[in-house]
Amino acid sequence: MSLLENISKNIYSLDNNSINQAKQKLDRLIKPTGSLGKIEDICMQLAGIYGNKDFDTSKKVVIAFAGDHGVYEEGVAPDPQNITQLQFPNFAKGICGVGVLSKFVGADVVAVDVGINCDHKLEGIRDYKIRKGTSNMVKGPAMSRDEAIKALEIGIEVAEECIEKGYKVVGIGEMGICNTTPSSAIISVIDGCDPAKVTGIGAGLKKERVEHKANIIRKAIELNNPDSKDAIDILSKVGGFEIGSMAGVILGCSANKIPVVLDGFISYAAALLAYKINPKTREYMIASHTSAEPGTQKALDLLDLSPVLNMDMRLGEGSGAALAFNIIEASNYTYQNMATFDEIDMGR
Amino acid sequence: MSLLENISKNIYSLDNNSINQAKQKLDRLIKPTGSLGKIEDICMQLAGIYGNKDFDTSKKVVIAFAGDHGVYEEGVAPDPQNITQLQFPNFAKGICGVGVLSKFVGADVVAVDVGINCDHKLEGIRDYKIRKGTSNMVKGPAMSRDEAIKALEIGIEVAEECIEKGYKVVGIGEMGICNTTPSSAIISVIDGCDPAKVTGIGAGLKKERVEHKANIIRKAIELNNPDSKDAIDILSKVGGFEIGSMAGVILGCSANKIPVVLDGFISYAAALLAYKINPKTREYMIASHTSAEPGTQKALDLLDLSPVLNMDMRLGEGSGAALAFNIIEASNYTYQNMATFDEIDMGR
Repeated sequence: MSLLENISKNIYSLDNNSINQAKQKLDRLIKPTGSLGKIEDICMQLAGIYGNKDFDTSKKVVIAFAGDHGVYEEGVAPDPQNITQLQFPNFAKGICGVGVLSKFVGADVVAVDVGINCDHKLEGIRDYKIRKGTSNMVKGPAMSRDEAIKALEIGIEVAEECIEKGYKVVGIGEMGICNTTPSSAIISVIDGCDPAKVTGIGAGLKKERVEHKANIIRKAIELNNPDSKDAIDILSKVGGFEIGSMAGVILGCSANKIPVVLDGFISYAAALLAYKINPKTREYMIASHTSAEPGTQKALDLLDLSPVLNMDMRLGEGSGAALAFNIIEASNYTYQNMATFDEIDMGR
Repeated sequence: MSLLENISKNIYSLDNNSINQAKQKLDRLIKPTGSLGKIEDICMQLAGIYGNKDFDTSKKVVIAFAGDHGVYEEGVAPDPQNITQLQFPNFAKGICGVGVLSKFVGADVVAVDVGINCDHKLEGIRDYKIRKGTSNMVKGPAMSRDEAIKALEIGIEVAEECIEKGYKVVGIGEMGICNTTPSSAIISVIDGCDPAKVTGIGAGLKKERVEHKANIIRKAIELNNPDSKDAIDILSKVGGFEIGSMAGVILGCSANKIPVVLDGFISYAAALLAYKINPKTREYMIASHTSAEPGTQKALDLLDLSPVLNMDMRLGEGSGAALAFNIIEASNYTYQNMATFDEIDMGR
């Protein structure tokens, strides 16, 4: 059995017993029942994931993948492609958005090259390069089926390595100029909606170019005709290496009973692929923020997730996941430290 | 001139020069322009408030007020009224929701009694009691005009005292069994909508009792006929002492160029009163979370505010404000610590 098959077969639903114990503990805290909303939801979910009503959420990591995209040549992004290779080392240096926010919340960043269009080794970056960028999906599939599986398995491997090192909360992030284009394509295929409904400005495309971007996505889907029931087919035909590896992290975390914090729009596409491979992965996901991209609500509806933050962010990188780590820790801290009705006479 | 008049006349618009300097600084950070969304909005707003592009947001306080309500006797709350006096000392002890979340984010809590229905001094609570609870607003005005002004001025005084002690970020919180009832009444009067549209379960009223609660509010508004243009009239006729003092904090912070972080539903009512007294106060407000109460969106629309958190919380106390302190600090940290295009060659 391949690593991917093996991992996918070993993902189970959350532990209901621990969820119930967490609920009982939450209901004894000195507050109206349920009044802490998602603070309570997160604590119950984490209890179910870890299989224990008490847990430690202090060791956190954002795993970020970078890749380039053949479809870049269709003029779907405002920035030069080499921004991917110029910016990605800043993830490791901790001086870009995700780096600084991770420092603020006390999280580490692991940055992995799965397909940057450059020949040289990048400083501080782990080299798992599959190929120097995908093929242009308006001319054929973005990658082979084997490459898609490889992307997923790299994600699984890096996730398992981090989990072995003791990380208890994992976030996913990415870098790849024009990767909102394959992300919109994936969401469009899975939802069955027209690409125009889930296509936006990405990192800052001029509004008049968004229609062109949607047309390119429509053309790629028509040409490649991905099977909407087969996540690996979708990934290979209209996806990206970094998106596949992010989906791999979700699978790897789910199989190892570790929560995985989504970031923005590109991470939703990865989450939908992981969900297609095994729907139970959804139980391990925590949505961080509502991305400013227009396809956001559709993707979140498909996943039935509601983010904790509403920041109008559209940076990606894992920046939203890092910021949400703080909410998760605040939730756990509240759960562990509030007084209970057993300790305090509240006339109940 | 009274303290209230004096403060209200000394509230000015934000410093545009500092906002522009902050924008220039933000635009040099290594990210697409505007891609950090509200992180950028918050930094520009804070620059405008403090009148400096650089600022310190580390010294933070939640100022919370408690009061009881005569309308309680109409059966509009699920809890006994003495929960107000039993729970409020837990604010000072740091063991309730706002206390624990404030500890997590490194904020202090100042708890002030402006109208709890009890005779004894409460441990750790500052005593500014106006009266032992408002009068029942379905039988007459909740308080006199003088008492309304007193509630506002207590808020101003306590805010100024905190600012003098060096607090740079102030949040508002409250405790008062059944205080979603006067809050819904205030929002209904200011918006001109039927109370049913802005009335919900509060701390956990049974759903079938919500209609009764809305009817009580409608009756109180009809009887007292508050002048929707006069915030002090609204506060005196259908408000609450703690709501008035929260509005006072907003006025006091605005006049002293300190940002004020709103909490949930009750704080929106206070914010609308402050806004009515001086619309420039809005520029000093930061919305923390989207409360689970149904009148939330209407209140936020009236204030033209969009919260950073979406937690389905309905605890009040200042718990949402405390949690949002972290987002404000993360925003400032990001703004101060990200590399700039001047330092890094990004081909721009």
